Amino acid sequence: MPANVLAHPHVDPRRGQVDATDVILTGDRPTGSLHLGHYAGSLRSRLALQGRCAQTLLIADLQALTDSSGRAADVARHVSEVALDYLAVGIDPALTTIAVQSRLSALAELTVLYLNLVTVARLERNPTVKAEVELRGFERDIPAGFLCYPVSQAADITAFRATLVPVGDDQLPMIEQTNEIVRRVNRLAGVSVLPECRSLLSSTPRLPGIDGRKASKSLGNAIPLSATADEIRRLVRAMYTDAGHVRASDPGRVEGNVVFAYLDAFDPDPATVSELKERYQVGGLGDLALKRRLEGVLEALIAPIRARRAELGGDRAYVMDVLRAGSARAGATTEAVLRDVRGAFALDA
Amino acid sequence: MPANVLAHPHVDPRRGQVDATDVILTGDRPTGSLHLGHYAGSLRSRLALQGRCAQTLLIADLQALTDSSGRAADVARHVSEVALDYLAVGIDPALTTIAVQSRLSALAELTVLYLNLVTVARLERNPTVKAEVELRGFERDIPAGFLCYPVSQAADITAFRATLVPVGDDQLPMIEQTNEIVRRVNRLAGVSVLPECRSLLSSTPRLPGIDGRKASKSLGNAIPLSATADEIRRLVRAMYTDAGHVRASDPGRVEGNVVFAYLDAFDPDPATVSELKERYQVGGLGDLALKRRLEGVLEALIAPIRARRAELGGDRAYVMDVLRAGSARAGATTEAVLRDVRGAFALDA
Repeated sequence: MPANVLAHPHVDPRRGQVDATDVILTGDRPTGSLHLGHYAGSLRSRLALQGRCAQTLLIADLQALTDSSGRAADVARHVSEVALDYLAVGIDPALTTIAVQSRLSALAELTVLYLNLVTVARLERNPTVKAEVELRGFERDIPAGFLCYPVSQAADITAFRATLVPVGDDQLPMIEQTNEIVRRVNRLAGVSVLPECRSLLSSTPRLPGIDGRKASKSLGNAIPLSATADEIRRLVRAMYTDAGHVRASDPGRVEGNVVFAYLDAFDPDPATVSELKERYQVGGLGDLALKRRLEGVLEALIAPIRARRAELGGDRAYVMDVLRAGSARAGATTEAVLRDVRGAFALDA
Repeated sequence: MPANVLAHPHVDPRRGQVDATDVILTGDRPTGSLHLGHYAGSLRSRLALQGRCAQTLLIADLQALTDSSGRAADVARHVSEVALDYLAVGIDPALTTIAVQSRLSALAELTVLYLNLVTVARLERNPTVKAEVELRGFERDIPAGFLCYPVSQAADITAFRATLVPVGDDQLPMIEQTNEIVRRVNRLAGVSVLPECRSLLSSTPRLPGIDGRKASKSLGNAIPLSATADEIRRLVRAMYTDAGHVRASDPGRVEGNVVFAYLDAFDPDPATVSELKERYQVGGLGDLALKRRLEGVLEALIAPIRARRAELGGDRAYVMDVLRAGSARAGATTEAVLRDVRGAFALDA
């Protein structure tokens, strides 16, 4: 595990919220390789939490299919890419379970059972579903799987008896939906078979793409965790700063300046970043000097990740073994939960 | 197997439609014991088809939960009641597989995968779903599982690679929905992994309840397959005939006359039934004489079923064994289909 990763100062500061008995479930849809936005937004927290309580990373390939069933082969390929990214940043499979959603048949069974506990109207009111439907332009042609995906998420969360789920503000309705289902299952069972879960809200602002827009692999505006030194230089040089900041002597804007957003996220010396912001706003600090500093910061962060990725990339059998072992461990957990939930529905175990 | 059952003249006459290579999937929701309406409408056909091609009877407990999750214990109890009814009428587990839906995890996995291939708008347009939503008064509070149940049915049908599905007119949209999913899976796979299915339409008119309304256990207007001779007499005596037929000498109506509906369905001597209809319409045939004839016919039909039911009812372990063995055989079939469908979605087998 690259030592610099865990020693990094920007780990999630709200350690006090997490208890040793907590069970964390989180993960990613395998729709592309991970980038620095994922690192700042979630991977860093996962590293910080690793070993402090039970943690499972679920590679949500079935969920990726809910809006990409036509790109199934792509999704399949990205399962091992995402696993490789996890291992490269320092996720240790001895401390964190890495599992593949589609290998856990209990999740589908829980989903089908939970669909009986939620009305269509309730799903349609889910703000996250509403927003995503708009974003993807589905309108009335929403795949049924997409409408039902809050139920599938509830299946994922409860299948691990997760108590803590890292989310962004926009995903809070998912937690509420999950807890509604938990209460209904417990009422059916007459005893508490599932725990309610809490959200672990990220305080990190979303890292923008190099053009200031939302980072996305398809826009080519994200910096991949596997970027070479040359790619880092090229992408940092292309970063949006302040269109009004033409000469180094001009006063510049810090807000909306992508270089400062990245320095805030990754520079291990925040005091110096504060000084640089002051000098930039007054005038007398050129973009190139700033970008050179950021290049150094990102190269220091990414170089060990890149090296470990290259090493593991040459040993795909190891990555496959990690997924197999993690999914087997997760399978035992989720099957046990399924037995309890089936009991609540008076189905034999 | 009671010999009189297979020898009965009213078996499904459209034998020509069924091929020895056909695979039939059918079944029942375990929401109550079966009655004469089930016998006339489906059980008799199943007996006639038994041994002529592969046939599976699925006891659809998960589907029963889509509108009865609050009555889960009731559903669970009726699983073995329905199995007992099957065995009592002469279903032979060596010739017909009897399986429990909730024991086949592949069905839930197929459902979740298929949900990605169907839009919400398409499900809402399904006339069967529309009709059932009205019937049950769900309006906007439809459980999501209920909206999705055509997808669950498609999972059931395809999981057995069924080619022939006995349905009523009102269920034809289900077959169409299933074949749409089949074509999408085959297109994703690039080869034909699932067969399309045909409907086996019943030509038998629906048997009314004794009051002329739709037969239903909850209305108490159905004659159970387990009825005693006394119950048969009581229910037949209470049958609706013709309110205008007061004296035996009055002319009477045959249409809408429940006694004639039952004689049409079950009397082994249709020529005599025709004569009786003529006499009844002219006048001179009393209701009591007719009802006595029907009592005899029904007692002859039900007595061996009742005897076999009593015999098996004392050996619940045997019924459980039948369900266990049938579900295991069905499990092997459905898991093999799931592997093929997962392949179509580029998920590892």
